Parts: sequence; structure tokens; C-alpha cells
Amino acid sequence: MTEIAKLGEFGLINHLTNDIKVKNISTKYGIGDDCAVLSYPDKQVLITTDMLMEGVHFDLTYIDMQHLGYKAAQVNISDIFAMNATPRQLLVSMALSKRFTVEDVEQFYEGLKAACNEWQVDIVGGDTTSSYTGLAISITCIGEADKDEIVYRNGAKDTDLICVSGDLGAAYMGLQLLEREKTVYYQQVDEARKKNNTQALEQLKTFQPDFSGKEYLLQRQLKPEARGDIVAQLREAGIRPTAMMDISDGLSSELLHICKQSHCGCRIYEKNIPIDYQTAVMAEELNMNVTTCAMNGGEDYELLFTVPIGDHAKIEAMQGVKLIGHITRPEYGTMLVTRDDTEFELTAQGWNPLKAEDKV
Amino acid sequence: MTEIAKLGEFGLINHLTNDIKVKNISTKYGIGDDCAVLSYPDKQVLITTDMLMEGVHFDLTYIDMQHLGYKAAQVNISDIFAMNATPRQLLVSMALSKRFTVEDVEQFYEGLKAACNEWQVDIVGGDTTSSYTGLAISITCIGEADKDEIVYRNGAKDTDLICVSGDLGAAYMGLQLLEREKTVYYQQVDEARKKNNTQALEQLKTFQPDFSGKEYLLQRQLKPEARGDIVAQLREAGIRPTAMMDISDGLSSELLHICKQSHCGCRIYEKNIPIDYQTAVMAEELNMNVTTCAMNGGEDYELLFTVPIGDHAKIEAMQGVKLIGHITRPEYGTMLVTRDDTEFELTAQGWNPLKAEDKV
Repeated sequence: MTEIAKLGEFGLINHLTNDIKVKNISTKYGIGDDCAVLSYPDKQVLITTDMLMEGVHFDLTYIDMQHLGYKAAQVNISDIFAMNATPRQLLVSMALSKRFTVEDVEQFYEGLKAACNEWQVDIVGGDTTSSYTGLAISITCIGEADKDEIVYRNGAKDTDLICVSGDLGAAYMGLQLLEREKTVYYQQVDEARKKNNTQALEQLKTFQPDFSGKEYLLQRQLKPEARGDIVAQLREAGIRPTAMMDISDGLSSELLHICKQSHCGCRIYEKNIPIDYQTAVMAEELNMNVTTCAMNGGEDYELLFTVPIGDHAKIEAMQGVKLIGHITRPEYGTMLVTRDDTEFELTAQGWNPLKAEDKV
Repeated sequence: MTEIAKLGEFGLINHLTNDIKVKNISTKYGIGDDCAVLSYPDKQVLITTDMLMEGVHFDLTYIDMQHLGYKAAQVNISDIFAMNATPRQLLVSMALSKRFTVEDVEQFYEGLKAACNEWQVDIVGGDTTSSYTGLAISITCIGEADKDEIVYRNGAKDTDLICVSGDLGAAYMGLQLLEREKTVYYQQVDEARKKNNTQALEQLKTFQPDFSGKEYLLQRQLKPEARGDIVAQLREAGIRPTAMMDISDGLSSELLHICKQSHCGCRIYEKNIPIDYQTAVMAEELNMNVTTCAMNGGEDYELLFTVPIGDHAKIEAMQGVKLIGHITRPEYGTMLVTRDDTEFELTAQGWNPLKAEDKV
């Protein structure tokens, strides 16, 4: 294991980035100067940034550095797709405490590069520095779109159909699963210590929780995929959403954003919310309401979008997209219709990153 | 004082940003969607990002939140000027632990906005989240330039003149001063505690160190200014630097970057390095070599640039720019010529952010 200070900032950056080859013609100059230089003569430029703090946004007992790098990139790329745009460049800043080694950062970059390669995104800059307290990550992603292609949150109209890609709640269930296994593990360690059972303690060092039958939940939590495929499908089908965003804080919270910014109401149907079989089983096991998990769970990184009612047949024909309700006039409120036809006002119970206890 | 969790992420962002008015025609959409949207049909786009960690890059016992916001913005804006470009947009991410209040973040934004207003920069997005451990800040700044205007680090040529703006070492001396006063303060508190001197302890609560005669050093450390004025002056004088960067890690380290990337050597003269009177006095007081401080101190945010020898007269006529040496062929090395005509090879003793003990 190599101490980071040994390489120094410039040595480390060089070590991590010297194999990066520029893929986009819009990237004029990448890493190596005060700024990266881009050129977008015919397109509008989209830019988004996210900060990820150890302990708040990720727990390195659950996720390894490679998955973390992959996820950090996908999550930002997802924001570009959510505007119906194409991701092109990415900047990555990391602050690392002394417990991180060069190999750890290499792993992070492996994951980051894998995600960037998947979407043909150029890593063009960033900052690498130290922290006294764990790992902090900040990613900025840049994309492009024709002016008329960009889809904001504010374009939803009365009678528009509300659609989501993929399924919801699985990433949150994956997190619950990881947290449960962590608790079980520490309980076993505690017990073994109390009983002074050195053999059990030794065995626990190589403890591997059994996740069989729950692989999808883990994958959704640890290896989310930005839905560029859905954006491409919509384009092929000739559908231009009227409003769109990605679901990072839970369907409920995101739908409220669209309704607020579009000055409209909505009606969505519990029975239409796409939920995977593993999500339902896990919710059952944990005695949680699976709809609540899907509505408020967060980290799904699926796309939530609205389309004109005239696109109904096209949407029905699409793979991986589910019609969950429709937009209404604002006076009808923002409602969830349950399986037994009761109406509930949507509330943003999504994860509040400023009050970590708040979740669901 | 208002707890941040009370407002929530969106409430807080709204509270901080609802008075922001877009100033640049390149800003098509600012805060409020998945991405900001920019338009640069006729210019190249420059982008830079920086991460600032509490305890590593700033100490809130020295700097208040308003100055920190101001400095964080100026430091990033400085990177845009360092490419001979014009700053236009800025994104700001903050991760805050529970000890920070809404009022703290307001103060930070006050400073941030003051710097952005000074340079007509639009705040177009960012991220606000929580941290378990202090304050983390990440700023991304976007600028524009004509393709032919952009000045990289790699264009310096044999016989070019090496110039710096302003003076060097003062920001570092300011930091030394603040650290000295902090040490003195805690020594006094310790002594008063040992002697159980409650009266002295009470007086120490309102302790105000005497910084008279050293105001410039503090200003340089706490309130740096990006040198957009120098970029404008160069343009007016019809001078296009062959290479340029800003001095954040110390003259020595930055000059080595230019020489490495331009495949050249350099010769600079100790007697020409601009040093303020207060910097010299403070170095004397602390028994430090003032040239070493100017060469390796860092955080000056002055511009280091090279110009063709034909611009000699124009540079001589400019206010606030000092000619410190010249570029040579690479085989002559990267040399500092001292007052007594001794030659020293330059070494990058600049601050290594990955090894905080490393400084000077």
C-alpha cells in the first residue's frame, strides 16, 4: 500500500490520469492547466454538480472505492440525461484523509473511468487534496443539447401522462439490507467478545453475509445506472417529454418539484408504480410498506417525465417505461390514489440531506 | 440562530438564492433544475474547480464565513483569469455539520455574492448537504474566451520575459501572523487556567490581537483579489502573454509548471521579486528568509506570465507588473539568481495539500 503523500498532488494526478484519452470533439483541453477548455458552438451547455460526504452519502463498510467512483459518476451523468441532454465532460474533486492509500484512489478512478467510458464522457479536471476527516467527493458533469431539445421541470401541462422508467424502491431496500447485515455482524462480534470466543471472532473476520436472492437490491444501491438508454429510446420513438427529472430523492418529492414548477397538479396510481419482486419481498421481511419505500426511498436514479396524452400509444409500446398517472389542473392537488381508491396528498418525505435522521 | 435542518435543503437554497439576478447573456437557466444551461456559440468555454476543507484549507478561528465565501469565489475566478479568459458562471457546493447555522451560510453567501458581483459572475447552481465533520466547500467556475485569446502554460519561448503582478509572500506571512496570535492566545488561556485566574480568563474572552501595521498581510490572507484588472491592462496594452497561470502554490512551483509544460528553462532574479514592506518586516520578526517566503509561500493569487521580449517597453510602462527574469533554453535549467549572484536550482517547495506538514 502506497501513502498518498509520497506521490504528492501532481504525482498522484499524473498517475491517475495519464492514460485518459479525449473522446469528444467538444473537449479542447483536459487536465493540466488552470482550466479545462471546451467548445460548444452549436449546442447549449448543461452543467451539474454534486457533493458526496463519507458517513452521510456513503459508508465504506458497504461500498468499495471502485463502486463508489462508478456511482459518483453515474449519479451526475444522470442529471444531464434528466434534461434530455448528452453528457460529455466530468471534473472530479476528492479530499482524502491519511487512511486512504494510492491504491484506494486508483480503485475509485477505475470505477469513475468505467462509468465515463460507458457514456463516452471525458474526465477533464478536478482537484485532489487532503481532509482531516474521511473522504469528500465533488463531481461536476457537463453535457450538451440543442436548445429545443432541453427538457426542464416546468413544462408539464394538464392531461399530460406521468411516466417513470425502471422500477422504484430497490436502491433503498438495498441500503436497508446492508444496514441490517452490518447490525447483525456487529451483534455477533459483540457476543463473541463477551463470551471471549476467540474462534468465533476469528471466523467473523471473513464474515460474508448471504445476499442470495437479493442481488438486484444490492446492485441498485451499489451500482446505479444513469438511464441514457431511456433518453435514446424516447428520441427514437419521437417522444419529447414536456417535463423531466431524475429520481434521486424519491418519486414523491420529485413529482412535487415538477408540479410546483409547472404550476399543475397530479394524480398517480399506487397500482401502477413499478416495483421489483425483490423489493416487495424485502419490504415484507422488514415489515415496511413497499409503496412508501417506492415513493420516498430515493437513489433510484430512474427518470420521471411527462408526455402529451397523444403519445399514449407510443409510451405503452416502450420497454422499461411505466405510465403511473396524469397531470391535472393545480386545484386538484397532488394526489396518490391507493389500490382501495383512497386519495392521499403527496408529501415530500424524501431524504433530507440536511437532517440525516429524516429518512422515510 | 436558526438550525439548518429546519429550512431543509430546498428551503435553504431558496432562501440563499432567491435574490440572485442573472447578469450574463450566456446564462440561459440558473438554479432550479437538474442542471444549469449555458450558451457559448462564439466562445470557448473554460472550467475550473476547487475543493476547500475545514482544517486543511481554512481555519474558522482565523477567517469568518463571509471572508471565506469571498475568498472561495476569488480563488476560482483567479483560475479563469489565469487563462486570459472572462469568468461568467459559478457553482457552489457546501457540506455543513450541525454546528453551522442558517446565519453562517447566509454570511458565506454574502461573501460569495460580493466576489461574484465584483466580476459580474452568475451563481447558477450547486449542492447543499450535510457533513459529520465540519465544513467542506467545492466551487466550480466557468468562463469564456475567444479561441485565440486563451493563454495556456505551455507557450513560453526562449528569451521571453517572466513577469508577476502585485507582490508575493504577503498571504503566507498573514497566515504566520494569525497562527502566532492563536498560539499566544492559547498560551495565555492555559496560564490563566493553571493559576485559576478567573479575571484573566474573562478578559481573554474578548481578546483582540493587535494587528496594527500588519493589515496588508491579513488582507492578503483573508481577502485575496483575483487579478482581472491585470488581464484587462494587458489586453489594453496589446500584450498577449505566451504562458500564464495564477500563483496559488508559490512562485517556485508555478514557474516549474510553466517551464515543464513549455519545455524550457528560466532564470529569475531574487532582487526583482516584488515583496511588500510589511512582508519583509514580518519575515524579519519571524526570523525567516523573505525570498523563501515569496518563492514558496502560496495563496498570493497573483498572475505569473511570460511575454515576448519585444513587449519589454510595454511591460516596463505597466503599473503593478514586475519583470523578474527570462525564459531560457531547457539545458540552462530553472534557476534563481540571488543578490550575491549565486545560482540556485528552483525546487517546488510549494504547499503540498496532500501532506499538510510540508509547508515551507
